[in-house]
Amino acid sequence: MEYRFLNQINSIEDLKRMDEADLPALCAEIRAFMIENVAKTGGHLASSLGAVELIVAMHRVFDSPQDKLVFDVGHQAYAHKILTGRRDVFHTLRTEDGLSGFPKREESEHDAFNTGHASTSISAALGYARAMRLRKETGTAVALVGDGAMTGGLAFEAMDDAGREPLSLIVLLNDNEMSISKNVGGISNHFASMRSGRLYNAFKRGLTRVLEMSKTGKWLELHMKRMRNRVKKFLMPNLPFEHLGFTYIGPIDGHDVKKVIRYLERVRDLGKPVVLHTITQKGKGYSFAEENPEAFHGVAPFSVETGKPLSTPAVSNSAVFGQTLEELAAADERIVAITAAMPTGTGLSEFAEAFPDRFFDVGIAEEHAVTMAAAFAAEGMRPVVAVYSSFLQRAYDELLHDVCLQNLPVVIALDRAGLVGEDGETHQGIYDPAYLASMPNLVVYSPATQAELRDMLRLALQRSEPAVVRYCRGAMPKGGGEAPLAVGKWLPLRPATESVILATGTMLPAAREAAERTGAGLTHMRFLSPLDESILEEYRSKGTRILVVEENVASVAPQIALRCNPCRVQSVAIPNHPVAHGSVAQQRARFGLTVDGIEAAWKELMSR
Amino acid sequence: MEYRFLNQINSIEDLKRMDEADLPALCAEIRAFMIENVAKTGGHLASSLGAVELIVAMHRVFDSPQDKLVFDVGHQAYAHKILTGRRDVFHTLRTEDGLSGFPKREESEHDAFNTGHASTSISAALGYARAMRLRKETGTAVALVGDGAMTGGLAFEAMDDAGREPLSLIVLLNDNEMSISKNVGGISNHFASMRSGRLYNAFKRGLTRVLEMSKTGKWLELHMKRMRNRVKKFLMPNLPFEHLGFTYIGPIDGHDVKKVIRYLERVRDLGKPVVLHTITQKGKGYSFAEENPEAFHGVAPFSVETGKPLSTPAVSNSAVFGQTLEELAAADERIVAITAAMPTGTGLSEFAEAFPDRFFDVGIAEEHAVTMAAAFAAEGMRPVVAVYSSFLQRAYDELLHDVCLQNLPVVIALDRAGLVGEDGETHQGIYDPAYLASMPNLVVYSPATQAELRDMLRLALQRSEPAVVRYCRGAMPKGGGEAPLAVGKWLPLRPATESVILATGTMLPAAREAAERTGAGLTHMRFLSPLDESILEEYRSKGTRILVVEENVASVAPQIALRCNPCRVQSVAIPNHPVAHGSVAQQRARFGLTVDGIEAAWKELMSR
Repeated sequence: MEYRFLNQINSIEDLKRMDEADLPALCAEIRAFMIENVAKTGGHLASSLGAVELIVAMHRVFDSPQDKLVFDVGHQAYAHKILTGRRDVFHTLRTEDGLSGFPKREESEHDAFNTGHASTSISAALGYARAMRLRKETGTAVALVGDGAMTGGLAFEAMDDAGREPLSLIVLLNDNEMSISKNVGGISNHFASMRSGRLYNAFKRGLTRVLEMSKTGKWLELHMKRMRNRVKKFLMPNLPFEHLGFTYIGPIDGHDVKKVIRYLERVRDLGKPVVLHTITQKGKGYSFAEENPEAFHGVAPFSVETGKPLSTPAVSNSAVFGQTLEELAAADERIVAITAAMPTGTGLSEFAEAFPDRFFDVGIAEEHAVTMAAAFAAEGMRPVVAVYSSFLQRAYDELLHDVCLQNLPVVIALDRAGLVGEDGETHQGIYDPAYLASMPNLVVYSPATQAELRDMLRLALQRSEPAVVRYCRGAMPKGGGEAPLAVGKWLPLRPATESVILATGTMLPAAREAAERTGAGLTHMRFLSPLDESILEEYRSKGTRILVVEENVASVAPQIALRCNPCRVQSVAIPNHPVAHGSVAQQRARFGLTVDGIEAAWKELMSR
Repeated sequence: MEYRFLNQINSIEDLKRMDEADLPALCAEIRAFMIENVAKTGGHLASSLGAVELIVAMHRVFDSPQDKLVFDVGHQAYAHKILTGRRDVFHTLRTEDGLSGFPKREESEHDAFNTGHASTSISAALGYARAMRLRKETGTAVALVGDGAMTGGLAFEAMDDAGREPLSLIVLLNDNEMSISKNVGGISNHFASMRSGRLYNAFKRGLTRVLEMSKTGKWLELHMKRMRNRVKKFLMPNLPFEHLGFTYIGPIDGHDVKKVIRYLERVRDLGKPVVLHTITQKGKGYSFAEENPEAFHGVAPFSVETGKPLSTPAVSNSAVFGQTLEELAAADERIVAITAAMPTGTGLSEFAEAFPDRFFDVGIAEEHAVTMAAAFAAEGMRPVVAVYSSFLQRAYDELLHDVCLQNLPVVIALDRAGLVGEDGETHQGIYDPAYLASMPNLVVYSPATQAELRDMLRLALQRSEPAVVRYCRGAMPKGGGEAPLAVGKWLPLRPATESVILATGTMLPAAREAAERTGAGLTHMRFLSPLDESILEEYRSKGTRILVVEENVASVAPQIALRCNPCRVQSVAIPNHPVAHGSVAQQRARFGLTVDGIEAAWKELMSR
């Protein structure tokens, strides 16, 4: 494709100079450019396709970096990257040393705030707006936020705090009725009613006309007051934002770039918190993504012509988890499954169809998911919360305070544990072992094969304490015929000689090869908490040299160094620095989490 | 005082048998009994005084434990404890082996869910309601929740999830216009408008009359539908709950026990989520607490006659922090202070008066506090978030994702670090060192005197990375003339011999005495992250035996055991089991965090 308009845009100044009449064509080119590139790199296509006009309009109306544009989650920001001087390197998206898939302050002055997890943007924009006011700067803070992210408590906390002050704060609501999956909950129902014909049409006849007539923000402000009662009659009974002190405007068509520009211009100078509600279509402009936005939320390289992935992935751990849970649930009606807006990502879609009454999608609300699970357990049910490691961070307190301190049998199916590759810093599942180790009563299961994942899920559901079963993104080996499980017991795979390598999960194959090369023993740490005290006591009493391999910020190695003290203990792990994007293999190589790296660490251990 | 009615109540069955006409007198006796006892033990007096009628009414109307009564935060539940068979042991409140100050499932079958942190009750009640429906049980789940807790995102997430199903779920809103301090935010403004004369009076003329005429829930349900439009005309423009799918009823006088009973009876059988909004007075019935509810929120033993504390505490670390921050802010206008509903507890009241524009109380919303602080820092301000260790747990993800991964200079003033004594399990500040150690870019300061606290706060605000300054509840020694600080450098206090004791903060005085007894060296670990690599290298190269003393779940000792490997390292720390209430001294004694305990551990270290 020839990018006649896009090729002229090397900075946002170029965008601002472009004739407004050409913007729709520019938007079409941006979409084509995204599809062409993301088909090769993979990425968050559907969200970014849906937000093209909103982002073009933002950059036409606001002056970044004086105005602060914050992208909630950040996976919709590709158009922003393309328009802010990164078009030529966009093909490096999500690759090592290439562009991040999310906004990064380190990458551009136009990326006001790093994002990755949902629902942070309004807090961030509010902080910016307050700081600018204190510094007597005149900028506006804009949070571009999806309706899905509005189900997160953090977004509510920020709205609740923001509404009471006159601040240049705009919440640009990108309402596509989706988070990653179809949205749920009261707020979503509310959005649905806003979109319904009567209100929308009443609105269009009323406020829209006024806005289109108005010439200045001042004028608008004046008329808003006169309009208020009339608008209220149509709209207010359904407007929770107004309760929180925001002025609400919308909904408008988020794919009509000129209309979005006009509305943003008018609300820019109001000097008070505004919600501008836009309706968009996730995946807009690419038929396969429009038809199946969930499949194109985060997508691997694919064929532009067919929309099909270029390679067929193996059956994922998530799928094995979902199938196993469905089997177990068929035999035990106490089992319920809970997800925070991730039914497909966590492998629960089929469970949801098989057991609709026992499946709960709570929205992007990890805190609530975990606390509600605690109550399910207290009432004798067997709740399983399926969540990515990086998102469980949101529920740290709920896991500790509501589940572990009460010793309630909630099972956390912790997906995407370890390095996650292309999503980079914000999505790494490398912090959980360190914090899970300090939580009371908790058993942390660490399978190395899909067969073990099944066995461990089954065992966790038979027992009566809190449990985390942690497994990586993608597919572990299938396995089969593993030795029976016992909580806190590790599995020796090669007898310890004067040295032993301890590993688990994704690291076991590389550790096995290193053990074969070096002649060291090998033990699979099937449980990260509690540790296997009897094996460790044996090592301690024999003075075995111990090499601990962890695909996370070191958690087990320090504990073993203390317990087996004064044995020699060496750690291969991820340091506590941010781990940027790249492939998982590249990320592992950075930290010596490879056969060669393990062998080198073993030699260092033996030389001490 | 003679407890004529209260002495007859040994179980909730006794309460249910009592003549309704005697309930106001019973409530008065419960208050007197609470005041008499809490004056001796200390405790959460003001909240519990405010909720007496609500709790009496709950137990008259509902049948615990079949019905599930969940107390948000749990500090208002004293009347519940007194009425459910624990009157005779109420004098042991918050003392070692005595009653917990919060609901505890281990203590009574009537304590449906352990609480301590705010905003969990609706999630828990929803879990119970859904589980009971799946189990085909008929009970009702009731969440007694204050208006302050409604500012927490977790409460919103639960409401958002709950409103879409027909469930026996009652949110009994105890609106006293306070959390610990005066409430803030849009939701609070909304409550205020609900309390305003016109609506309240319209309500009283309208719905109240209907309810009083009605005889059955069925009847009510029928008439609710007819009433709906009329009620809406008065009330709906201010009802965010309705947007989330809840039926809203109120406000009513929460100190009119008969009225509360009547309303609860009527809403009990609706079979759908209801908010019953009651207005109460925090501290009700004790003039000193009514006049100064914040001072009587959590109170030390006091004189019933004068309301004055029995002993005058030393100037607290919180006060030193607040004074210091005020001084620093006078000289640096970039400094702003943020609290999550704890201006007094964290020592910020005077800062708030001195710098009202630079002080932000965000409500019970730790997540938002931390993310907003990150944006303040990104805009060149110097935000300080003052928060208790146990409540920072709520913002784990925001601290990692928004502050540390972005390497933004947010300072967390981490109060109540370490053992907290009488509040018990849920409030212990013993988990943060373990999880903070894995966070990128973060410096963790650990003062041992108030002078050092001042110096560290000053240094943290001069530097450009994320920082946590952690200090204990109460008062550290004043100190003065400490050696200058350098990040990551510890302070040797007695030269290491063949052994050294490492300690910090609250543990330093005991460690010093143990070092003097044993002849060991002593080093003050002024920083928990990063550790002092050069001192550790010296120990490692000399083979020094190292005893690490930590008033938290072991975090530093394992790290040192790995770094100084194969030196002999011994740990005195808190195991990862729940730490129940008692005095701090008693809690320390449980884990050997005493001079004798440290000496014994040193002997063990030397004998190995």
